[in-house]
Amino acid sequence: MFEPNGIITLTTDFGVEDAYVAIMKGVIMAIAPAARLIDYTHGVTPGNVIEAAYLLQSGYTYFPRGTTHLVVVDPGVGSDRRALAVQTPEAAFVGPDNGLFTAIVADARTRWADHVQVVELNDPRFWLSSVSATFHGRDIFAPVAARIATGTPLRDMGRPVVDMVQAHMVVPEMQQPGVARGEIIHIDRFGNCITNITYDHLERFGLGDRVVVSIIDQQLPGLTRTYTESPVSTPICLMGSSGHLELAVCNGSAARTLGVDVGDRFMIRRRMERTA
Amino acid sequence: MFEPNGIITLTTDFGVEDAYVAIMKGVIMAIAPAARLIDYTHGVTPGNVIEAAYLLQSGYTYFPRGTTHLVVVDPGVGSDRRALAVQTPEAAFVGPDNGLFTAIVADARTRWADHVQVVELNDPRFWLSSVSATFHGRDIFAPVAARIATGTPLRDMGRPVVDMVQAHMVVPEMQQPGVARGEIIHIDRFGNCITNITYDHLERFGLGDRVVVSIIDQQLPGLTRTYTESPVSTPICLMGSSGHLELAVCNGSAARTLGVDVGDRFMIRRRMERTA
Amino acid sequence: MFEPNGIITLTTDFGVEDAYVAIMKGVIMAIAPAARLIDYTHGVTPGNVIEAAYLLQSGYTYFPRGTTHLVVVDPGVGSDRRALAVQTPEAAFVGPDNGLFTAIVADARTRWADHVQVVELNDPRFWLSSVSATFHGRDIFAPVAARIATGTPLRDMGRPVVDMVQAHMVVPEMQQPGVARGEIIHIDRFGNCITNITYDHLERFGLGDRVVVSIIDQQLPGLTRTYTESPVSTPICLMGSSGHLELAVCNGSAARTLGVDVGDRFMIRRRMERTA
Repeated sequence: MFEPNGIITLTTDFGVEDAYVAIMKGVIMAIAPAARLIDYTHGVTPGNVIEAAYLLQSGYTYFPRGTTHLVVVDPGVGSDRRALAVQTPEAAFVGPDNGLFTAIVADARTRWADHVQVVELNDPRFWLSSVSATFHGRDIFAPVAARIATGTPLRDMGRPVVDMVQAHMVVPEMQQPGVARGEIIHIDRFGNCITNITYDHLERFGLGDRVVVSIIDQQLPGLTRTYTESPVSTPICLMGSSGHLELAVCNGSAARTLGVDVGDRFMIRRRMERTA
Repeated sequence: MFEPNGIITLTTDFGVEDAYVAIMKGVIMAIAPAARLIDYTHGVTPGNVIEAAYLLQSGYTYFPRGTTHLVVVDPGVGSDRRALAVQTPEAAFVGPDNGLFTAIVADARTRWADHVQVVELNDPRFWLSSVSATFHGRDIFAPVAARIATGTPLRDMGRPVVDMVQAHMVVPEMQQPGVARGEIIHIDRFGNCITNITYDHLERFGLGDRVVVSIIDQQLPGLTRTYTESPVSTPICLMGSSGHLELAVCNGSAARTLGVDVGDRFMIRRRMERTA
Repeated sequence: MFEPNGIITLTTDFGVEDAYVAIMKGVIMAIAPAARLIDYTHGVTPGNVIEAAYLLQSGYTYFPRGTTHLVVVDPGVGSDRRALAVQTPEAAFVGPDNGLFTAIVADARTRWADHVQVVELNDPRFWLSSVSATFHGRDIFAPVAARIATGTPLRDMGRPVVDMVQAHMVVPEMQQPGVARGEIIHIDRFGNCITNITYDHLERFGLGDRVVVSIIDQQLPGLTRTYTESPVSTPICLMGSSGHLELAVCNGSAARTLGVDVGDRFMIRRRMERTA
């Protein structure tokens, strides 16, 4: 059973230079004066649902049980896309029905089966009294997050949904035994290129940890353990803190050194052992 | 009667890369340990009083009754400009006397008449013991905001002001019947161009919602309801979530597409109806 | 005796566009649900320990007694650099052993002698159960900061350190009587160039407040009191709010006007008095 702990995190593509995030916080505090608000990130690339989903997934489990996650990356605001709330025994999520919660719901269902609720928010009594066509973060999602955090059950606020919109996640593909194709899904502030290859893929594809990565015309040596284990400005690979393969450069930017961007693809293959 | 709820929002042009904002928060927490601090925005263009006033106005009313708003956009720090505190029955404001509060006080006076107080902060007992010439946010405004949030009455901290500095707000002008001139006052993270034309102006100028906007050499079709109602990369107009006319581009930047900036002007006219 | 007040500030070079900062906050709140989290800054230049130390020093004393400061600027993460916690009667600090706390510990020792504790964090019982090679902010520093803020004594979490890594601080040098050399150590959002020259240096070097600064091929007049005391776009010098000499330009950027950057050096000399 989900029991709200009063914490609400906020993830948006609004940036922090406008008043939009503050306005959502004002709305929340007017409904839930004791809520504790934590900025998750407001730096999602405008409209990039896949990136928002990755960032959320890489960290929401570190928050204490009972946290509500408000996620407004909503390029379809004002169209007929639905508004959703999701609840597992450990966490709740509020946001547009555009694929943001695909992976989270899939993971949760393998763990808690039908204790995972997904509802379409269709009851205006829980929203601001006037709803604009362009800012549902303020008018619908923030008020609903505030109500979840203060204990309103999901079933009161919407009706069950079984056909949630699915994200077009890029799934790593096995090309031939011991060879797979991956893609860069996020570049962080340091220029580290986070990819869609996880520990699980390495194992499933029979790659283990002795691998070679080829991207564009460069070949990167097998996995190192830390960012500092190679000469400055030499690209390396490692399994990063979110459990994903990263391309990195010690004290530098892998994205810039390699000349790559989000969406670029690479090959990863088992390293040939030298015969003795 | 204003009753502080313990929430203090912070609006500055300090950015978030320096320690200035954190220092103000430290000062506040030392005086008001139970205060709840919310970043409104620190992304105001350095010294841009008009932009700060717009951002504040577009959202402060969403905060619960009793909130204190600390606003430090203060190009004249250290000169003889006065330090102000403003109080309405619903909210309090602290900042320099440079036009930041012109519209807020005008609106509040139409609503609460002489229940709106404006004082010049002239009593150093409520400030830090040592006041620098360059950081009144830390030395004067933050301590006073903390004291307002903990219940010190305004009249104890300053003397009434009747000649508050007025902002040079750009007022939309009617050019001839059915034709008005507006100006871009803010460009948000998405490149949406927020203008000084509100619902009220549309009505007052007899424009209604069937309008055409001309800016530079482009003509934009009449108001749409949402950002998504036109082909990608075609500029549109809509009444945005703050009640102002916005120029926008679906999944793109209107500022970039149109090549316009804050301060640029445009014409808005009633659309001619085709005869049947 | 240090008594934690429940406030934890966070200083990193992580920026705010990724999930890293939020993840550390989640970890803290899971251990210390009542902690109050304040972003100090996340805008430190990646890996710049000296800048982080300056920003922290310029403001941590404004926080109330009992505050814990978590500082993760950690280019050597995953190498054998040690993890530290520092405690004075007024504040606690947690971060890597790379010079971040050199000046703070030196200052504190002159004031509180052996009431300043420095320990190496070497007891994994106080960390997350699994420690990655690349994100000790999440796995070691955040959990330890949370425990300090909830009252765990430092001596339980590590062993005393006497050979803390020292930062290579740039010390202003006296060149000849009345002439000294300084260096720019930080450029703030406004383009103000903060230098390593403090009030103390002016006095120690016998410069007083009647000085002339020469940088590259320009000469700046003696100290003004505020940013607004000279014509627009003319570079000036003043003693800034952190007690350091700053090069500034009224309503402009001194860094851009002068064409200078962090690390650039300048001469400061006593101004010759005109004979009457």
